[in-house]
Amino acid sequence: MTTAAPVPTPAAGPRERMVRSAMALICRQGVSGTGLREVVAHAAAPRGSLQHYFPGGKEQLVGEALALAGATASRTVGRLTEAGAAFGPGDVVAAMVGAWRRWLAETDYAQGCPVLATVADATVGSGALRMATADAFAAWQAGVEAALRQAGVPAERSPGLAVLLISALEGAIVLARSRRSLGPLDDVQRELTPLVDGAVQA
Amino acid sequence: MTTAAPVPTPAAGPRERMVRSAMALICRQGVSGTGLREVVAHAAAPRGSLQHYFPGGKEQLVGEALALAGATASRTVGRLTEAGAAFGPGDVVAAMVGAWRRWLAETDYAQGCPVLATVADATVGSGALRMATADAFAAWQAGVEAALRQAGVPAERSPGLAVLLISALEGAIVLARSRRSLGPLDDVQRELTPLVDGAVQA
Repeated sequence: MTTAAPVPTPAAGPRERMVRSAMALICRQGVSGTGLREVVAHAAAPRGSLQHYFPGGKEQLVGEALALAGATASRTVGRLTEAGAAFGPGDVVAAMVGAWRRWLAETDYAQGCPVLATVADATVGSGALRMATADAFAAWQAGVEAALRQAGVPAERSPGLAVLLISALEGAIVLARSRRSLGPLDDVQRELTPLVDGAVQA
Repeated sequence: MTTAAPVPTPAAGPRERMVRSAMALICRQGVSGTGLREVVAHAAAPRGSLQHYFPGGKEQLVGEALALAGATASRTVGRLTEAGAAFGPGDVVAAMVGAWRRWLAETDYAQGCPVLATVADATVGSGALRMATADAFAAWQAGVEAALRQAGVPAERSPGLAVLLISALEGAIVLARSRRSLGPLDDVQRELTPLVDGAVQA
């Protein structure tokens, strides 16, 4: 089993490293299972830096980790829109599924989606962290919608299809971790590709 | 917020009540968050009955709760196949989504899928409980596949579509709980209904 990733880059300061470490640890252990001392140790941050950078404590740190997760997910599809080459809706599905296929294989299925883990965590309730999960999903959805529109999907159809793609991928990740098999990701990609390609305006 | 459901029926014996209570509590609190004493209290079971009925301890009890969850999910679509009336693949989607729409509304979004919660729980690892989640998903998938076939979907297409339906529903439940909105379930049903209806052999 590999260690929690993404590995903090040496250039990142302690604040950024702690946010990245929190995200990586939540992927593996969930919010309840991730202690603040563990985040500080994982980030190789100085003692006391947590209070300095995150006066709002664990809630602030986890909130920023979820925001990073939403931005990261959005960037996965954003690379398509920024590359300048033409792409179809099926390429959006391929980019989303492909990133998770690699991630699950690299982590031996130990690391799932940190946003899903937070929603599933009973201690989160319906307060600030629940809203942070909604913001992370909204950022991801905005990225997917933009990519679908650029791929030719009508604007009125893009939000519903983006919700479907994110939902199906999230569920397939859970099935894949349960089975320790990438099969569910293959099934979802195979079934959804013609659906989204068929949504392109003629 | 309502209390954990399904409420044990008075006719059920202590063993069955404990399995049901475990399932209900895992829906709300996850596996790590659910204590054995709490299960006994929720089930109004006599002290000591846990050890009597579940010599394998928490792992056995949780395993049986997950098996019950898989059987319950399968029965949701099984009702269609047993009713004797004709139905289409879109009715399978409607039955699956409809059950969760009611459940999320009834529980004020507090109770998600117990199988997903177990997969997301870091303490579960890759041992017996992970396999119990795979069995629960397999039971659900078998029920969905059978219903899709009876609705006219070709046998070779049914497994992939069943995985897609379960994945999309699981993800949509997470999005719905995150947003406290049934919108994601509506989106998934609207987008998947024509897909599965279109899979029927002409």
